[in-house]
Amino acid sequence: MKRIERTGMIIRVLTENPNKLFSLNYFTSLFDAAKSTISEDIAICRKIISDMGDGEIVTVAGAAGGVKYVPRLSDKTVRQFQQQLSERLNEPSRVLTGGFLFTSDIMFDPRVTKFAGNIFATKFMDLNADYVVTIETKGIALAVMAAEALNLPLVVMRREGKISEGSTLSINYISGSTDRIQKMSVSKKSMHPGTKAIIIDDFMKGGGSAGGMAEMLAELDVSTVGIGVLIATREPKKKRVDSYYPILYLDNDPEDGRITISPNDESLE
Amino acid sequence: MKRIERTGMIIRVLTENPNKLFSLNYFTSLFDAAKSTISEDIAICRKIISDMGDGEIVTVAGAAGGVKYVPRLSDKTVRQFQQQLSERLNEPSRVLTGGFLFTSDIMFDPRVTKFAGNIFATKFMDLNADYVVTIETKGIALAVMAAEALNLPLVVMRREGKISEGSTLSINYISGSTDRIQKMSVSKKSMHPGTKAIIIDDFMKGGGSAGGMAEMLAELDVSTVGIGVLIATREPKKKRVDSYYPILYLDNDPEDGRITISPNDESLE
Repeated sequence: MKRIERTGMIIRVLTENPNKLFSLNYFTSLFDAAKSTISEDIAICRKIISDMGDGEIVTVAGAAGGVKYVPRLSDKTVRQFQQQLSERLNEPSRVLTGGFLFTSDIMFDPRVTKFAGNIFATKFMDLNADYVVTIETKGIALAVMAAEALNLPLVVMRREGKISEGSTLSINYISGSTDRIQKMSVSKKSMHPGTKAIIIDDFMKGGGSAGGMAEMLAELDVSTVGIGVLIATREPKKKRVDSYYPILYLDNDPEDGRITISPNDESLE
Repeated sequence: MKRIERTGMIIRVLTENPNKLFSLNYFTSLFDAAKSTISEDIAICRKIISDMGDGEIVTVAGAAGGVKYVPRLSDKTVRQFQQQLSERLNEPSRVLTGGFLFTSDIMFDPRVTKFAGNIFATKFMDLNADYVVTIETKGIALAVMAAEALNLPLVVMRREGKISEGSTLSINYISGSTDRIQKMSVSKKSMHPGTKAIIIDDFMKGGGSAGGMAEMLAELDVSTVGIGVLIATREPKKKRVDSYYPILYLDNDPEDGRITISPNDESLE
């Protein structure tokens, strides 16, 4: 097999499996080639991916080492995405009775959620989490894309305990957006104690859902190491969680209540 | 830029965006290269992807033409996935009180759902659907991965009408697994009349949910052109929908009720 074919295949395999480590042996036996040949191939792949500006190929040294592809979006690419998405969300037809914003098409859009998942992965990759966690329903597509990019399992908390979840742990919490008591529940077999989780959700206002999830995780002896949402309201500034990363902010004009969505311009680099 | 770099980047761009058409001009201006050069590059990429056995690069002729990557899994690859997944699902610890099977970890596993999404894309690609549709909650990860592979928007039906969905259409239907009346609801602005949809769900027993979704789609003047589920029970044979494609079958031993999961060995080639 020629070098041009091997490098094409290596790029395909690595980028299809973000954050998954492949040993050099995997490629030497796949291509029946010498280790030195594969090392040179990978150096070429690394340059190609680096030139594309949205990820990198990382080498992990040692006996259990190998290479992996990691998403690593530049601020410029993130800003472009945020601008385009803000424009879509600022279309006047999205405003519903009661001042709600229609976002379901965007929260389940595969391309939007995949890109957002790569942003969350860029932000949270170095935290070495064990799980991505969300609560049904509208954050699930975002969360599964983040979990894919981070190569982590996804745990979805439910509003009600289900027979098919087996034995569950439940808590009540106050939703910041509705001021009502809500319930969440999670299967006890879904997570191991002493691990770390990243919480992903579609929307944050008071932080009640994220706070409730963090509380639930604490009950399971799982620590929350990061919280990411697609949209957070700018007000109230004080939320029930201290630290969170929103991709976009929502502002309500104090005069006429008009909603404006805009990028969070925090740097991820 | 060298050919080896161009081909690596073309493979990356195409496979990251399944079923999305890129004009030749896109690549000629990206690389500042002649059309004949890019055509030769693409021929090399086509061979590389074809040799990998899980997809192909397709050329669409004409003024609005271009190239796109489409997932196209071989039966051999599908069978391997089905075998491994059946083994995971047949672990005795998954059986819950009441004979239910714990599947949540699998239904939200990013790698499993991504592979399953590529199977559904292979099966349903030629139907030229406009939407992928599911109902909350456990089919959402599968459905968003199928939607990504098919480059289609995803519509998620809800159990209850939500303020944030705007004006909704609701129906009641009988769930085949529980024999209870359930409700489903969808935002009227989520789909255009006169279009086609593929229904994806995690599990099918009587076919009540899928039948309910098809009924709802008919109300919106959307025709159901395909139904895919991860697991379908072998009994009852007669379900509320005529035609559906399960990746796996579930058998209940008539003597002791023991559950066995096994591959659907229908060919997709």
